[in-house]
Amino acid sequence: MAEKVSDLEKAISTLVTEFHKAGGENSNGLNTDQFKNLLSAQLPTLAKTSGGEQGLSTMMQTMGVKDGEEISFSSFWKLIQTQASSLFDQMSPKTTKCTCVML
Amino acid sequence: MAEKVSDLEKAISTLVTEFHKAGGENSNGLNTDQFKNLLSAQLPTLAKTSGGEQGLSTMMQTMGVKDGEEISFSSFWKLIQTQASSLFDQMSPKTTKCTCVML
Repeated sequence: MAEKVSDLEKAISTLVTEFHKAGGENSNGLNTDQFKNLLSAQLPTLAKTSGGEQGLSTMMQTMGVKDGEEISFSSFWKLIQTQASSLFDQMSPKTTKCTCVML
Repeated sequence: MAEKVSDLEKAISTLVTEFHKAGGENSNGLNTDQFKNLLSAQLPTLAKTSGGEQGLSTMMQTMGVKDGEEISFSSFWKLIQTQASSLFDQMSPKTTKCTCVML
C-alpha cells in the first residue's frame, strides 16, 4: 500500500515537477521562453511586478544566470527561496516590544 | 474576487506555513522537540532514515544549527533544498550516452 504523502513532501514535489514540466522531459534546464512561461503561469504576481524584459533580465542576474545560459534548477531554487523568505517575513510575529501594561 | 493561487504558489506557502505551525504563533524558530515533531509528521521517510538522535544531530549540523540554538527558517530551508535537489536528481533525464544502435 502506498504511504500517505505529507503536505510538505507534496510541496517539495510540486516545486520540482513544475520546473521539470516547464523544461520538457528531456531537459535539465529552461531556456528564457520556458522560464517566462513558467513565471506567468505559476508566479503571476511576480511576473506582473517584475517589470517586463528589463525586470526579467535583472531577476535572472539575481538568480545567478549568465546571458544566454539555461536556467538550472539551482538558479530557479534561488528565486523560490527569495519568495519563501519574503512570505516568511510577512507571516512572522513582529519583534517590536509590546509596551502595553497589564493593569 | 480572489485570484486563483497556482500550484507553485501553494507549495511555497505550504513550506512556510508548516514551519510556522510547528513553531507556534509567537515564534520565529523551532526548538529541537518542535523540529523533531515537524520531521516525523511532515518528512517521515527522512525521520526514519536519519538514524535516531545521532542522525538528528548530524542533520542539524549540516543545516548550520549550533548546539542549543533554535532552528531558524533559513536553516530549515537548507534541509528543504537538500530534499528538493535530491528529488530533482532522481527525476532528471540521465546524461549517460545511449550506446544502443538503431538497426
